[in-house]
Amino acid sequence: MPGRNLLFATNLRCTSCGSIHELNEKALVCPKCEGILDVSYDVEGARNRFTKESLNSHARSVWRYKELLPISEDKYITSLGEGLTPLKKTSNYGRMIDLTNLSLKLDYLNPTGSFKDRGTTVSVSKLNQLGISSAMDDSSGNAGVSLAAYCASAKIECTLYVPSSIPSEKLVQARIYGAKIEKTSGSRTDVAKAAEKRWKESGLYYASHNLSPFFFEGMKTLAYEIAEASNWHVPDHIVFPVGGGTLLAGAWKGFNELMTLGWIEHVPKFHCVQSEACMPIVEAYQKGSTRVEPVIEGETVAGGIRISNPARGWQVLKALRATGGTAISVSDVEILRHQRLLAGKEGIFAEQTSCAALAGLEKLRRTDVIKTDEFVLVPLTGFGLKDTKSAAKFLESVN
Amino acid sequence: MPGRNLLFATNLRCTSCGSIHELNEKALVCPKCEGILDVSYDVEGARNRFTKESLNSHARSVWRYKELLPISEDKYITSLGEGLTPLKKTSNYGRMIDLTNLSLKLDYLNPTGSFKDRGTTVSVSKLNQLGISSAMDDSSGNAGVSLAAYCASAKIECTLYVPSSIPSEKLVQARIYGAKIEKTSGSRTDVAKAAEKRWKESGLYYASHNLSPFFFEGMKTLAYEIAEASNWHVPDHIVFPVGGGTLLAGAWKGFNELMTLGWIEHVPKFHCVQSEACMPIVEAYQKGSTRVEPVIEGETVAGGIRISNPARGWQVLKALRATGGTAISVSDVEILRHQRLLAGKEGIFAEQTSCAALAGLEKLRRTDVIKTDEFVLVPLTGFGLKDTKSAAKFLESVN
Repeated sequence: MPGRNLLFATNLRCTSCGSIHELNEKALVCPKCEGILDVSYDVEGARNRFTKESLNSHARSVWRYKELLPISEDKYITSLGEGLTPLKKTSNYGRMIDLTNLSLKLDYLNPTGSFKDRGTTVSVSKLNQLGISSAMDDSSGNAGVSLAAYCASAKIECTLYVPSSIPSEKLVQARIYGAKIEKTSGSRTDVAKAAEKRWKESGLYYASHNLSPFFFEGMKTLAYEIAEASNWHVPDHIVFPVGGGTLLAGAWKGFNELMTLGWIEHVPKFHCVQSEACMPIVEAYQKGSTRVEPVIEGETVAGGIRISNPARGWQVLKALRATGGTAISVSDVEILRHQRLLAGKEGIFAEQTSCAALAGLEKLRRTDVIKTDEFVLVPLTGFGLKDTKSAAKFLESVN
Repeated sequence: MPGRNLLFATNLRCTSCGSIHELNEKALVCPKCEGILDVSYDVEGARNRFTKESLNSHARSVWRYKELLPISEDKYITSLGEGLTPLKKTSNYGRMIDLTNLSLKLDYLNPTGSFKDRGTTVSVSKLNQLGISSAMDDSSGNAGVSLAAYCASAKIECTLYVPSSIPSEKLVQARIYGAKIEKTSGSRTDVAKAAEKRWKESGLYYASHNLSPFFFEGMKTLAYEIAEASNWHVPDHIVFPVGGGTLLAGAWKGFNELMTLGWIEHVPKFHCVQSEACMPIVEAYQKGSTRVEPVIEGETVAGGIRISNPARGWQVLKALRATGGTAISVSDVEILRHQRLLAGKEGIFAEQTSCAALAGLEKLRRTDVIKTDEFVLVPLTGFGLKDTKSAAKFLESVN
C-alpha cells in the first residue's frame, strides 16, 4: 500500500450544529457545540473515479477500501490485518430457528478477537497523523483491548478506564499489550465519566471509540465487506447487538455510501437487539422518540452492550426507521441458550454480547418480522474466549 | 464451491512399508504394519491442468486449494472459513531482535482460535465421506477444541481425551461445542494411551490429528498461503513451534508440491523449536539420529508442544536436514518474555506455545544461523486468549 491515497474524504461536519471543520481537526467533538463530528465525502468524485474493479488489487485488510477512509497517506496507517473476516452460511442453526438463508459474519476473527479492530485501525492511524503520543479511552473491554493493541504497534501510550467487572481474559489482554489500567467501580456510565474527567483535567488525548468520527469510519467497512462478499446483492435483514451504537450506525453509513456509488440496489433492514437489563434504545424506539434517555444499568452477561446512555443512540433510531427495522430486547437466559446452541449446532463460539443478536433474531422470526426464506445476516462481534466464566457456569447449570 | 472437484489425489501410501491403499481406506494407519499413511498425488496431471491463475475464483478458505486436497466432492466439506489468515510484517519487534524482514502469520485467527482448523476441516470432511457418526481424539487442547467444533457442524459425536492440566478456557470451549470430555491424569503420553485403548476396545473412530493423513493434508495449506501471499517468492527461513510435528512436516510437503508444480523456486529452511522441558526432536537432531526416542515430559507453559513421543518426529528430522534448518530448545522464562514483547511491541497476543518459536528465533539470529536481512516467517499458531493464566502470572511477576 505505498504512497499517497486517492482520498475522497473532504472535511468534518458537526451532526448537531452543522458547522464544518478540517479533516485534521484535533478536537474529538465539535469545538463549537460538543456535538458528534462526521466525515464528509466527495461522493460525486468517488462515483466518477472509483470502481468496484479497482478493489481487486488492494490490501487484505479494511484498507482495501482506503479511498473511502479518511487517512491521506499510507505511512500513517497502523494495521494488524483487520477485516475481511469469513462469512459462514449456517446449516443446522438456521434451520433450527426456521431460517433457510442465514449467514454469520465471523467478525470475532479480527486481530484482537473483536470487531472493534475495524474502527481502531482508522482511529489510531489518525492519532499517528495528528502526532499524538499518548491516548486514553473508556471501555467495557473489547474496545479498550483493541486500542491497547494498536497503540502498542504505533508506539502510543495507552490508558484505559474499565469497569471493575471486566472479565479477567480481557484484562490480561489489555495489560499484556502494555496499557495502563484504571479500574472504576460503579456503572459503565461512571467509567465513562471518570475518563471524561481525566480528559478535561489532564489534556490526555481522549480517543473515545464511541465519539471518534475516525473510529466510526472504520465501522462502515463491515457494510462494504458484506456487500462485496455477497457479490453486491446485500441481505434483506441485518440483526445487530447494540451498546454504544457505532457498529449499527457505521454500517448504515457504509451501505448508504454504496447506494450513492451505485454499487448496490437497496439497503438491508437494520434491527437493534439490547439486553433487557439495559435497553435505552429499545425504550426510545417503542416510545416513538428520536432521542434516547439514559436508563439505570442492570446486570447482564452481555457486558459489551451494557451502555445506559449511548452516544450514537439517535443515529441508531434514525437507521432503524429509515430502513424499516425494529428494536427488541432479550434476557440473559436467552442469550446463554443461543450461545450454547450456536456452538453446538455450528461449531462457532461467540461472545455473549454477540449472541444477544441471535436471541433477538429468533424472536424476529417467530413474530414474522423476518420471513423464513429471507436473506439474513448477523455479525458475530466478539470471540467466546473473551469471557468464558459465564459460559462455563451456564454449561454446569444445564448438564 | 459446487459439484465434483478436479482432484489430483490418487491413493494412500504407507510411509513405513510402502504398501498402497485406496483413498477411501477407513483405517487410520496402515492396515498391514500400522505405519503412518500419506496421500499421493498425480503431480504430472496437476502440473499440466492446474495453474496459479485458476486460484483466483476460488473460495475464501483453505478450500481455495481444493484440487490438492483429498476430498472428491464439495458435498462432504465441513468448513467454518478456516485459512487465509493475515500475514503481518513486523516493525518494532523484528527490529528489536535485529531482523529487518520478519513476517508473522496470524494463524490464531482461525475459527476456533488455532491453526488446527486447517487440518480439521479436511479430516472431518473425510469423516463425512466415510459416513462416520462418532469420533474421538486425544489432545492437549487446541486440536481437540477444533475437532469438537467441526464435529458439531458436521453432526458427528465427539469424545476428547485431555490432560487434567488443560487450561480452563480450552475446556469450556470444547464443552460448549458439545464434546464429551475424558480428563486423564498423568503425562500427555498417558492421555494418548488412554485414547488408543478406547479406540482398540470400543471401535469408536479414532480421528487422531497426529496420525491422520487427512488432517496432515490440511496442514500443508499453510505453505500454499505463505507462498501465495508472498507472490510466490517464499521466505528464506520458517521457524516452527514443534510438538507432534504435523504443522512443520505438513508445510514441508506443501512447499515440495509447489516446487513440483513449478510455482516456487526454492523451499525455505525449516527450523524446529521445542521447550527445554520436553525436547525429543531436538535431542534426536543433536545426536544425528533419524529416529526420535521418547523422553520424560517436564512441566512447561507451552502445553501445546509438550509431546514426549511425537508421531511425526522422523518426518520433522527429515525436513530439517533436507532444507538445511536446525532444532533448538527454549525455556519458559524466554517464552513468556517473548509473549509479552510481541504483545507490547506489535499489538499481537499469541499463545505461549507459539511464542516458543519467537524465543527460538531470537537465538537463531543471535548465533547468526539467520542473517539480519533474510526473509523470515513465524506462524503464530494459537490465540493468547486460549490460556491467560500463565500470562497473567508473568505480568504480575514483572510489574
